[in-house]
Amino acid sequence: MADHNTSPEFDVVVIGGGPGGYVAALRAAQLQLRTALVERENLGGICLNWGCIPTKALLHTADTLRRIRHAEALGIRVGPPQVDFTQVMGRSRQVSQRLNRGVTHLLRKAGVTVLMGSAELAGKGRVEVTDTQGTKQSLKAKNTIIATGARARELPMLPFDGKRVWGYREALSAKEVPQTLAVIGAGAIGMEFASFYASLGAKVTVIEAAARVLPASDEEVSAFVQQAMAKEGIRFMTEARLVAAQVGSAGVALSVEQGADRHQIDAECVLVAVGLVGNVQGLGLEKTRVAVDRGCIQAGDWGQTAEPGVYAIGDVAGAPMLAHKASHEGIECVEYIAGQRSGRQPQALIPACVYSHPQSASVGQTEAQARAAGTKVRVGKFPLEGNGKAIAIDEAQGFIKTVFDDVTGQLLGAHLVGPEATELIHGFTLAGTLEATEAELMETVFPHPTLSESMHEAVLAAYGRAIHI
Amino acid sequence: MADHNTSPEFDVVVIGGGPGGYVAALRAAQLQLRTALVERENLGGICLNWGCIPTKALLHTADTLRRIRHAEALGIRVGPPQVDFTQVMGRSRQVSQRLNRGVTHLLRKAGVTVLMGSAELAGKGRVEVTDTQGTKQSLKAKNTIIATGARARELPMLPFDGKRVWGYREALSAKEVPQTLAVIGAGAIGMEFASFYASLGAKVTVIEAAARVLPASDEEVSAFVQQAMAKEGIRFMTEARLVAAQVGSAGVALSVEQGADRHQIDAECVLVAVGLVGNVQGLGLEKTRVAVDRGCIQAGDWGQTAEPGVYAIGDVAGAPMLAHKASHEGIECVEYIAGQRSGRQPQALIPACVYSHPQSASVGQTEAQARAAGTKVRVGKFPLEGNGKAIAIDEAQGFIKTVFDDVTGQLLGAHLVGPEATELIHGFTLAGTLEATEAELMETVFPHPTLSESMHEAVLAAYGRAIHI
Repeated sequence: MADHNTSPEFDVVVIGGGPGGYVAALRAAQLQLRTALVERENLGGICLNWGCIPTKALLHTADTLRRIRHAEALGIRVGPPQVDFTQVMGRSRQVSQRLNRGVTHLLRKAGVTVLMGSAELAGKGRVEVTDTQGTKQSLKAKNTIIATGARARELPMLPFDGKRVWGYREALSAKEVPQTLAVIGAGAIGMEFASFYASLGAKVTVIEAAARVLPASDEEVSAFVQQAMAKEGIRFMTEARLVAAQVGSAGVALSVEQGADRHQIDAECVLVAVGLVGNVQGLGLEKTRVAVDRGCIQAGDWGQTAEPGVYAIGDVAGAPMLAHKASHEGIECVEYIAGQRSGRQPQALIPACVYSHPQSASVGQTEAQARAAGTKVRVGKFPLEGNGKAIAIDEAQGFIKTVFDDVTGQLLGAHLVGPEATELIHGFTLAGTLEATEAELMETVFPHPTLSESMHEAVLAAYGRAIHI
Repeated sequence: MADHNTSPEFDVVVIGGGPGGYVAALRAAQLQLRTALVERENLGGICLNWGCIPTKALLHTADTLRRIRHAEALGIRVGPPQVDFTQVMGRSRQVSQRLNRGVTHLLRKAGVTVLMGSAELAGKGRVEVTDTQGTKQSLKAKNTIIATGARARELPMLPFDGKRVWGYREALSAKEVPQTLAVIGAGAIGMEFASFYASLGAKVTVIEAAARVLPASDEEVSAFVQQAMAKEGIRFMTEARLVAAQVGSAGVALSVEQGADRHQIDAECVLVAVGLVGNVQGLGLEKTRVAVDRGCIQAGDWGQTAEPGVYAIGDVAGAPMLAHKASHEGIECVEYIAGQRSGRQPQALIPACVYSHPQSASVGQTEAQARAAGTKVRVGKFPLEGNGKAIAIDEAQGFIKTVFDDVTGQLLGAHLVGPEATELIHGFTLAGTLEATEAELMETVFPHPTLSESMHEAVLAAYGRAIHI
């Protein structure tokens, strides 16, 4: 072990190089804090290497395939597209590598000390780093930020085997499109891969324990997405419970209970997408006061744990496990350490996006959540069939829904399904963050002809003033 | 002429069925006003029939062609696309017809009396309508809203001939792609058609009198768009003045002066896109106090003219000649008539969009305008090369620029070039309308991975806090 007296000393040591961690480190460097970042595997974390980014590259290929298949309606004659699956997956990896290099460059340029290895809290403001060769190094850390993220939850009866039983990593590095794919879990990850593999020709069955797909979404969004994806040939089983699984050399046989019925689903491969668990192991937490609850570290307003000088942000600090929530917390935490923040944290609105086809996105409360909270709500809904741009681009499927507090006129939530939903949701996120009233939203001039006009109409609709319904 | 005593009586008669007019009529009907709308040609006006909407249908085909041509990079093998130009143009007309039927349906459902014909102010709260058969009818109108829009400005030396010399109408109903096309005027209309016809194989030359394309845009936007479109093979001549034109049976010969040089441009067809002039003729304005200045009616805060009970909105009431400005004014004017508005009109922020490839969009002041107004400005700029989603979808070309008042932190303007710029600009429009401060914008959580994150970064960049630069 290194001599403690010569240990390098940092104001902030960040453990984990995902979006929460590397953004925290970059912000710390901006604030002139001496900063180190320890990463076990890939700078950029799951998000950049095995999550958000590479899946978007794949879904862009799927979207392009869809455009080609529908091109004839636009007056374009083109032969049937042939997919080079190796190249499709290769490009997705290249995109991740490019961004990984980008993060490496940003950290170097900012003067952050990057250490590749695993880190453990070693007491009294010390972090011990073990590199890939097993060499240990001790760092002095005035503040330590744990940003170790989360990983795919395994099902005991279906452990990932890298061949027949996939997590997101295997789904991102498959060698060929399976003829049949079963997806367990209809959350964002399950739905995005279902969408991708179905568009490439796999026969996909999605098995979900809850009563509907995307259980965290507004109920009308769930219903619309399920119906649209079913039309594209994906089979959905909801309120369906996996009761047995047998992995063979040619595929997996799943026994699924749905009410009184039991179904057997045979699939070449099965993707398990039943949620994430925080990476809390091997950090030496047991020797600290840091409290762990159901796989996540308990953290306060600015990421503080029960151990002085130790913070936790991002996925490892709990739901919602989203990259933008992690990087937001990373910035807040570092600014708190730098003395720029105090008091209670303002409740940030965290939008959520699903990039399947159709896309969906939401921010704030669903209609059911608002009603369950006892609020008198006003709901506006505008179908994209009434939007000129959506018709012009031949994508007039979907809707925009707004949920207002009927008494105060506050925007409580917004829920979008359809083209570019994930790019549009920021507008409602801004409106919510700025505490816009319904009157201000109605007065705003949205450009014509855009999909975003439907957002305006969905606000007007809540007040009986929509124009194009 | 109809007997005055039996003339139908309306609270509001709207002259012109474009987006300003029909939206005004629909809002008036919502407010229980007895409403008539007189339209000379097509419900929906130029925008819906010969402007915004059908061009977006064409540009969607161009965009799909581009996607197909670049599909190989995504791992998709596909033969060279063949364009059926008749079908491309036919679809664009169908989109317009579908929306035209939609507006017809909305007006009928709302109980608006629609009269097809031309209208003239006939004094003392009367409007005289002459239908296509020449039959005249007199309406009693408590209030008259002139929403007659604008039309393409003709060049005296190049009058539209429907064959070699095009306005936007001819560009939207051409029978084949010309081998060579000259476009006079590099505003939004000229640039969109240049983009469309070039993507279909025409050799396009754009001739612009100003020093740069899109002269109303921020200078950096103009420069970026020109360079990107030049890379796609479009030739640009700026500070170029058309001095002579000769129309022959096979094409048009243009003499263009650029500084001391004189160039001859030969083109099969020429599109004249040098702006719009308000439709103020034949309305009987000369018998009223309504004032006309440089082709547009002078209107007050809520559309009031100098003639009591007569209002003007939209293009005919002056720049910016944009559909969403027209419909916004239509709603304001009707609400004023209904007694729901008074005092001074709040200054609305009107975004502007250009749907060429690359797209661009802006709201508020350009950097130069803000500086010219004497404001101490702070500028933020974020290139899409730093955006993960842009890289994942292989469209990391463009940037987002923000202009802040350095003293107050007020967002003065925002300027976007790149994918979905036209769908993103509503966010900055909302922010500007809500008078968001830089601090509030920085605190907002934008979803990952989206292009919209670049908007956040462009705000952070203005304050030296961008993460991904």
